Amino acid sequence: MLALRLNGKDRDPVPERMDPDPVPDGWVEVRLRAAALNHRDVWIRQGLYAGIRYPFTPGSDGAGYIGNDPVLINPGMDWGSNPAAQGAGFHILGMPSNGTFAQRVSVPASQVYPVPAYLSMEEAAAIPLAGVTAFRALFTRGRARPGERVLVTGIGGGVAQWVFRFGLAAGMEIWVTSGDDGKIREAVQRGAAAGMNYKNEQWPELARTSGGFDLVVDGAGGPFAAAILKYMNPGGRIVVYGGTAGAVEKWLPQPLFWKQLDILGSTMGTPEDFEAMMAFISTHRIAPVLDQFFPLEKGADAYHRMALGAQTGKIILQIPDE
Amino acid sequence: MLALRLNGKDRDPVPERMDPDPVPDGWVEVRLRAAALNHRDVWIRQGLYAGIRYPFTPGSDGAGYIGNDPVLINPGMDWGSNPAAQGAGFHILGMPSNGTFAQRVSVPASQVYPVPAYLSMEEAAAIPLAGVTAFRALFTRGRARPGERVLVTGIGGGVAQWVFRFGLAAGMEIWVTSGDDGKIREAVQRGAAAGMNYKNEQWPELARTSGGFDLVVDGAGGPFAAAILKYMNPGGRIVVYGGTAGAVEKWLPQPLFWKQLDILGSTMGTPEDFEAMMAFISTHRIAPVLDQFFPLEKGADAYHRMALGAQTGKIILQIPDE
Repeated sequence: MLALRLNGKDRDPVPERMDPDPVPDGWVEVRLRAAALNHRDVWIRQGLYAGIRYPFTPGSDGAGYIGNDPVLINPGMDWGSNPAAQGAGFHILGMPSNGTFAQRVSVPASQVYPVPAYLSMEEAAAIPLAGVTAFRALFTRGRARPGERVLVTGIGGGVAQWVFRFGLAAGMEIWVTSGDDGKIREAVQRGAAAGMNYKNEQWPELARTSGGFDLVVDGAGGPFAAAILKYMNPGGRIVVYGGTAGAVEKWLPQPLFWKQLDILGSTMGTPEDFEAMMAFISTHRIAPVLDQFFPLEKGADAYHRMALGAQTGKIILQIPDE
Repeated sequence: MLALRLNGKDRDPVPERMDPDPVPDGWVEVRLRAAALNHRDVWIRQGLYAGIRYPFTPGSDGAGYIGNDPVLINPGMDWGSNPAAQGAGFHILGMPSNGTFAQRVSVPASQVYPVPAYLSMEEAAAIPLAGVTAFRALFTRGRARPGERVLVTGIGGGVAQWVFRFGLAAGMEIWVTSGDDGKIREAVQRGAAAGMNYKNEQWPELARTSGGFDLVVDGAGGPFAAAILKYMNPGGRIVVYGGTAGAVEKWLPQPLFWKQLDILGSTMGTPEDFEAMMAFISTHRIAPVLDQFFPLEKGADAYHRMALGAQTGKIILQIPDE
């Protein structure tokens, strides 16, 4: 089969012919038709994770066929028995095990889910990793309820986009932040109540007029995550699923305890989160936003586009038939 | 009646004769026999709260009689309808309304609870404010379970002492911190598994050997609250009920989301928290640790002792019969 292989730190992935992995008892082999990139893939290419052993096939998100059945893959493997947190054995498809940037991938049978009939293979491949991260952050951890005012930070991001759409579909009032006024305008056109540019010093004025946030879903951390405490409603929750802006500086305990706030870390999701997310997507007929398609053989170009960060929506690899 | 009155910012409270407050329908008048000081009283004397109007009678904690029935008072008034957070009408007995440092106090009938038969009036008066704060932090917010490893910071503090004793009674493994080795030794003699002096740079070594904390109950914030993230178990909770050490510096999002941690603000407690606390105390026959008794007329001396911070346990005002 054809697979995209990483052969060393900071090197472009290259298409190579190789034998597919064996398929142990209880596992299934998916004949992949589409895969999607995540930031994780760029960080893996840069060698930023512990325990990388070259060569291997990257890729966490993918969709394809088992026989004639269209399926997509839950890339979160071996969560463990505690729904509150993944166990020590938890890992994500595509490092250290071989991933979805190939014509075939072998996974435990419990990791595959039917593709909703209204979605293309490319759309299905764009769901798993960002979708389940957003679903757990918003609903399982954030306990979001219809009618609440929810602030989604960094609306350009892949997880943030899912939180935005899940929240709208579930009847929340969605506010967004971005460093880019264009992305804020786009979100408002698509249903956001309002947006704040965190690079504009006037943002606290806008936050003050919001009536207060019941929930913030944040992938950045940094100074904004501390400043927003002031604009939380009593009993409010801040869910943090990433830290692209670095350490949270000068978090004051007083608003935290006086307003009885929750600050909740969240990453990925349990099999139950994944199943509930797939049901939610089907019920509300949500389709992912796609950016650009690349053939598997041109995977390196897809990585470069991802590293630039200019995309809106998912970058897709189209995988040819064997 | 005799009451201790505050007549201005930073001035000692003085004993004065005055008429008791009226007793509206649905309220009761408690003939107080004992009251206890809290840090809140010292901060009120220093004028650190908004909206103080002089003169008034301070005091949040008290116990006494209605007829022949011994009662203690829940000082948290008008919590509101949301168990997650107190409403805008929430206030604490003893500012702005007249409090317990007097021979009589008038409160809604729903604020009084019977004194467990094994407790003196002085012991009963020492329970309410710190007890309910500790109970909500440990159980309601912290979701502490038997067998968990719980770290109680600043073990010299009044709330921390209650968390310590509730946790031992409920079957948790309790670790403590203090800046004072003597207080750590004392806690270990009374049942703590171990203690760490946060002024000693070796504390992370000890934390590493703990096996990780499931729950931290913290009244300080500051640099320690950020550093402890590293020693939390997956799915762990940090409950923050105070901020005596100031802003939390450089809280890294990565351990927060990767370990799916909760950081939970908590203050005071609902009427349900108070009722559950009283039941827990009675079941486990817990008696508060008392420091020193002062007659009501010498209230200023009690304030001075509290401001010095050298006490172990509650400072009590004994209130003479009318």
